[in-house]
Amino acid sequence: MEKRKVYMDYAATTPMKKEVLDAMMPYYTELFGNASSIHCFGREVKSALETAREEVAKLINANTSEIYFTAGGTEADNWAIKGYAFANKERGNHIITTKIEHHAVLHTCEYLEKYHGFEVTYLDVDKDGIVDLKQLRESIKDTTILISVMFANNEIGTIQPIKEIAQIAKEKGIAFHTDAVQAVGNVKVDVKELDIDLMAMSSHKIYGPKGVGALYVKKGIKLHPLVHGGAQEKKRRAGTENIAGIVGFGKAAQIARINLDNHIEKLTSLREKLINGVLDKIPYTRLNGHRTNRLPGNANFSFEFIEGEALLLSLDMLGIAGSSGSACTSGSLDPSHVLMAIGLSHEIAHGSLRLSLGDMNTEEDVDYVLDNLPKIVERLRMMSPLYEKVTKGGN
Amino acid sequence: MEKRKVYMDYAATTPMKKEVLDAMMPYYTELFGNASSIHCFGREVKSALETAREEVAKLINANTSEIYFTAGGTEADNWAIKGYAFANKERGNHIITTKIEHHAVLHTCEYLEKYHGFEVTYLDVDKDGIVDLKQLRESIKDTTILISVMFANNEIGTIQPIKEIAQIAKEKGIAFHTDAVQAVGNVKVDVKELDIDLMAMSSHKIYGPKGVGALYVKKGIKLHPLVHGGAQEKKRRAGTENIAGIVGFGKAAQIARINLDNHIEKLTSLREKLINGVLDKIPYTRLNGHRTNRLPGNANFSFEFIEGEALLLSLDMLGIAGSSGSACTSGSLDPSHVLMAIGLSHEIAHGSLRLSLGDMNTEEDVDYVLDNLPKIVERLRMMSPLYEKVTKGGN
Ligand SMILES: Cc1ncc(COP(=O)(O)O)c(C=O)c1O
Ligand SMILES: Cc1ncc(COP(=O)(O)O)c(C=O)c1O
Repeated sequence: MEKRKVYMDYAATTPMKKEVLDAMMPYYTELFGNASSIHCFGREVKSALETAREEVAKLINANTSEIYFTAGGTEADNWAIKGYAFANKERGNHIITTKIEHHAVLHTCEYLEKYHGFEVTYLDVDKDGIVDLKQLRESIKDTTILISVMFANNEIGTIQPIKEIAQIAKEKGIAFHTDAVQAVGNVKVDVKELDIDLMAMSSHKIYGPKGVGALYVKKGIKLHPLVHGGAQEKKRRAGTENIAGIVGFGKAAQIARINLDNHIEKLTSLREKLINGVLDKIPYTRLNGHRTNRLPGNANFSFEFIEGEALLLSLDMLGIAGSSGSACTSGSLDPSHVLMAIGLSHEIAHGSLRLSLGDMNTEEDVDYVLDNLPKIVERLRMMSPLYEKVTKGGN
Repeated sequence: MEKRKVYMDYAATTPMKKEVLDAMMPYYTELFGNASSIHCFGREVKSALETAREEVAKLINANTSEIYFTAGGTEADNWAIKGYAFANKERGNHIITTKIEHHAVLHTCEYLEKYHGFEVTYLDVDKDGIVDLKQLRESIKDTTILISVMFANNEIGTIQPIKEIAQIAKEKGIAFHTDAVQAVGNVKVDVKELDIDLMAMSSHKIYGPKGVGALYVKKGIKLHPLVHGGAQEKKRRAGTENIAGIVGFGKAAQIARINLDNHIEKLTSLREKLINGVLDKIPYTRLNGHRTNRLPGNANFSFEFIEGEALLLSLDMLGIAGSSGSACTSGSLDPSHVLMAIGLSHEIAHGSLRLSLGDMNTEEDVDYVLDNLPKIVERLRMMSPLYEKVTKGGN
């Protein structure tokens, strides 16, 4: 088989769709006005901004007025948590989140703990990565003001029981934020049905441009701005709008909404082929994350007797792009906090590989991986003294 | 004379240069990787990020490692002030700024005062908009940790004595931040020579894309992140990088640096023609801001007996785009806080017009304005009972 380029790191970022770029281009050329200016150069871009807002709202069944654009998922998470915490401080200082959140949530919570007098509970998850609802209930105190649980995990793909969590929060009068950066556009997300108060989204995970995101803020939710200044975004998020980026995000949201069913069906089928193929062909391998209740495009394996970075580099040489942890921490030597939280040992966690599928992947891509990955794993294992012992012992 | 399209609102935002867009395009197509990923899709974008950082650094004579990308000037201002204030709280809670700052600085300071226990002194400016250095010295207390004075004002163009202010801060061991969003690319800015600690910049004011900016953070300055999460920007500003935007900013910075002398000469000459023409042709008119110590492209007039919004709309109908205040507050009915601070009455402030020139403006554009503005002003004045009184009185 020929060498190909197989991108399986869609959870890190996605290529932009052509329609998205086409939609953006006018705002980089003739329609360059500032959306806040009252002259004609400004007015024409203002309406594009509102159209994009509508599209993002539709994707998650929100009201248009509940969507606030940000510079990405990270900013949206920071804003939701800091903004809510600071604005509701007098009601309490306790926040509940989980051990498997993205660093955008974890480091934000740690910061509030360390410097701003908040107290944070980090919930455990079970071996599949699902949050413990009993522990959640027991963690709630009189001072709890916010629960933040991610919709779907970026590393292992596990989807949380969001409706139940939102229900618990509601019963106790606590606000509920969810980091839905990986979920939106990949699974059905309906903020009304699920009764979500705050939700972070990111454009570059759904075939839109990088550096754009949004925070859904349910009507009535009290929130301090994270970024103060001009009157943009109804005075809740200042800064001259990244119009081209927002228009691209709007277009990507529209496409995601229209294609959602097909997208889920296609990716689920490719993922099943990939997971079954890998588990079948490669011994001493485990699948991380819930077997079925996971993102359509997510596969995450741990291969015993292997070092993940070496595996990644070998795959890279064959044109296959995957990831060992989440992109923003790869390069660091700590094992993934998510894999630790589901109970893996350091060694096993270090031998992990995330392959995340997306719209441009084909059956042939999966075949290419299934042809090459077993050989690479076998070759790397041959260099491991531990592996030798096991295989010899097995004889 | 034919109707033309004359854009004179470059202080609100600028059109992108073609070279800038050309530089960005690959990062919207084949080079779509996440800069933090270790596979080849990621590596190729990482180096583009660092090239852009070098270009921004060169424009202001900083070290490359002192440049941190943000989502714009507003975020950079917020980060500098909140980040420095929170990180240095135990040393003191007093901040000094001015009454004519952009809202990105003013509202940030007000927020710290209202909710986080800081105390802020807002310095006066003289009739030309220049900060009072004596008052600055007298405002300093033992608890003063930060001085934030803008480099050049966005409405009236006045340039502050930055070197003197930095010197005063330094003598007292206080950090100095300057909002240089309007200055960078329009006047010479050398952070080393001026001894600046923190400086906010924005791409879309220098013919780069919107939604990108940078904060210069002098080596050794202690600062909390504003946006927590992944390890991007040396762990100081999290979030997947807006690569295309950053590359565009880098290109815009390079062009700005190379063209700076020509740019200044050209705009200064157009500005002088515009200012002299307007003052000459239109009675009861004053120029706001310092007569010479001002941004090359800035002209700001107050026309007595006139309502600024009406003037803007009349100009708009002739294809001339100007601004009444700063773009982010236009639409509001409060008179500009900057014009109030330089001592204008409400009525006079309401009759103000900012025309800000840029690279695409020509002598013909200025002629077109000089042909039409006097007629429009005269027509609007004819509707004012006050004007009638004055002119009748004058007979
Ligand atoms: C679950 C999750 N949250 C937040 C983020 C951060 O979003 P962004 O990359 O737009 O900053 C990511 C992606 O990196 C993510 O996967
Ligand atoms: C002086 C000044 N500071 C800050 C800003 C905000 O920058 P940005 O538009 O990139 O958010 C602006 C422009 O609006 C400005 O003119």
